[in-house]
Order: sequence, then structure tokens, then C-alpha cells
Amino acid sequence: MSDTVITAPDGLPVIEITREFAAPAALLFRAYTEPDLVVQWLGPRRLTMKIDHWDARHAGGYRYIHTDDEGNEYAFRGTFHGDPTVTEGIVQTFEWEGAPGDIAMERITFTEQDGRTTVHMRSVGFSVEARDAHIANGMESGVRDAMDRLAELLPTL
Amino acid sequence: MSDTVITAPDGLPVIEITREFAAPAALLFRAYTEPDLVVQWLGPRRLTMKIDHWDARHAGGYRYIHTDDEGNEYAFRGTFHGDPTVTEGIVQTFEWEGAPGDIAMERITFTEQDGRTTVHMRSVGFSVEARDAHIANGMESGVRDAMDRLAELLPTL
Repeated sequence: MSDTVITAPDGLPVIEITREFAAPAALLFRAYTEPDLVVQWLGPRRLTMKIDHWDARHAGGYRYIHTDDEGNEYAFRGTFHGDPTVTEGIVQTFEWEGAPGDIAMERITFTEQDGRTTVHMRSVGFSVEARDAHIANGMESGVRDAMDRLAELLPTL
Repeated sequence: MSDTVITAPDGLPVIEITREFAAPAALLFRAYTEPDLVVQWLGPRRLTMKIDHWDARHAGGYRYIHTDDEGNEYAFRGTFHGDPTVTEGIVQTFEWEGAPGDIAMERITFTEQDGRTTVHMRSVGFSVEARDAHIANGMESGVRDAMDRLAELLPTL
């Protein structure tokens, strides 16, 4: 089974996430852009996801809420820059509403070879401190959960 | 007269631009967000600016075209993340359509003291190479022109 690789280079306001999946790029792209699919994997297992809106086009926006079993809500939002495509990928902004103003820009790409697809995300923030806060907020386990859930979902599509 | 300070720190995918103006923050904010005002200063003196659309709200978009006197066009576009405000500033994405896919995220803030306002922009890109390309594309003289034109415009408002 493929592992999710997460790196946070010293001194750069950057987080990189890479994971390989046994599925074509077109399917990964659908999983990342169609809200009925996104809602089935994007988040930690212990949280329930609800999509407020999801418009995956240039100057479209998205917003979703994760809820834990005590009813605490965590809302996230962003915009899309450029129309997402399989070949060019997705560029979006990202903000956790619990840390308003800490906004990152993310590029997600899909590279297929021999029927397997590597998904790579590069996230850049305005400062190294903001990047470090993302890590400290427990981003890593949530990302690993999401990538595993996506890997479980793909064969069912 | 205040000078525009432009810095491109070694090894960071960052450009910073700072300029002080003899005007209140509310007026600078209008100049940056109202298209009828933006069109009067945002660009080099030698180019004519036309705004295709400008919607300064969360998940709004903007696009404008600079034309030189030979008719060559340079188009730029982006999205806004978060509703812009005087106190929190503006966060937007930025892309020159002549270099598609090279997208940056910019934060512009307005800090007023004793009736003078410092405008600070921090632009982050996906790589140091992309940041260096922005500089190599002649960004600096265009920015200095724009800041000077803005300083000339403000007293007329």
C-alpha cells in the first residue's frame, strides 16, 4: 500500500503532500472536484463532512464544515484560480475559519503512469510561521486519513 | 517624496512592496478596490489599462488588459479570497496570462498613522524560480510607475 508523504522544508512557507493511487488521473480529478465525491473522503475519519458550496471553476468558491461527535464545527473555505483540468491540475486558496486571515494557496496535480496516478499538492503560505501553525494544528493525521479514505473510495467509482 | 521599496528575499518565493502615501487608509482602500479608480493608476505609464471585470468580494474575480502603443496586449487575472476590508486588507491571486499557470497569492495591507498610510504588499509564489521570473519580466519598473501614479491620483479624490 502506498504511503502519504508529507514534507515541510526548513525555512520555506511550504507544505508538500504526495500519494500514489491505483486509479487513472481522470478519476482522481473527479474525486477532487465533484462535491458528491469530495464529501466522501476529504477529512479525518472521526469528523463528519458537510459541503456548504463547491463551485470548481475559475473564481468559484468552496466551503465545507467538519463536525466532531460533540457537535464542534470546523469550517474551511477558499476560491479556485483557473478552471481546474486533469492536465494542469487545481489551484485554490485555503483558509480554516478558526484561524481567519491565515490563507494558503495550493496547487494539486495528477500525474498518471501505467494506470497509477501520483497526486501532488504544494501549499504555500504568507510566512514560515503560518506554515508551522498548520502543522501544529494537527494537519498531518487529517491528511493521512483523507488520503487513505480516498484510496478506499476509488475502486468503488 | 516617498520611495517605493521592493524586496525579493534570497531563497524565498516572496516579493515585498512598500510605499507610504499622504492619504488616509480608507482612500487607499478605495483606490485598490473600486474599478473606476484602479484603472487610473494600476500599471506602467506607457501602457493603457482596460478593466474586463472587477468584483472585489470573496470568490469574486478580476481581469484587466494593458495595451502598448503598438497594440500588444498583456492580460492579468485573479480571484479575491475573503471580502476585502480596510483593517484586514486584500488577499488575491494573480496571474499574467502570458505565463499561464504561474500564479501568485498577494496580501495588501493599509496601515494609517497621523493621516499617512503605508501600503504593504506581500506576494508569494509556488517556487523561488517563479518569483525570479516575475522580477526578470520587468515587474519592478511597472510597480514603481503604478505607485507614483497612485500618489498623483490620491489628492484629486
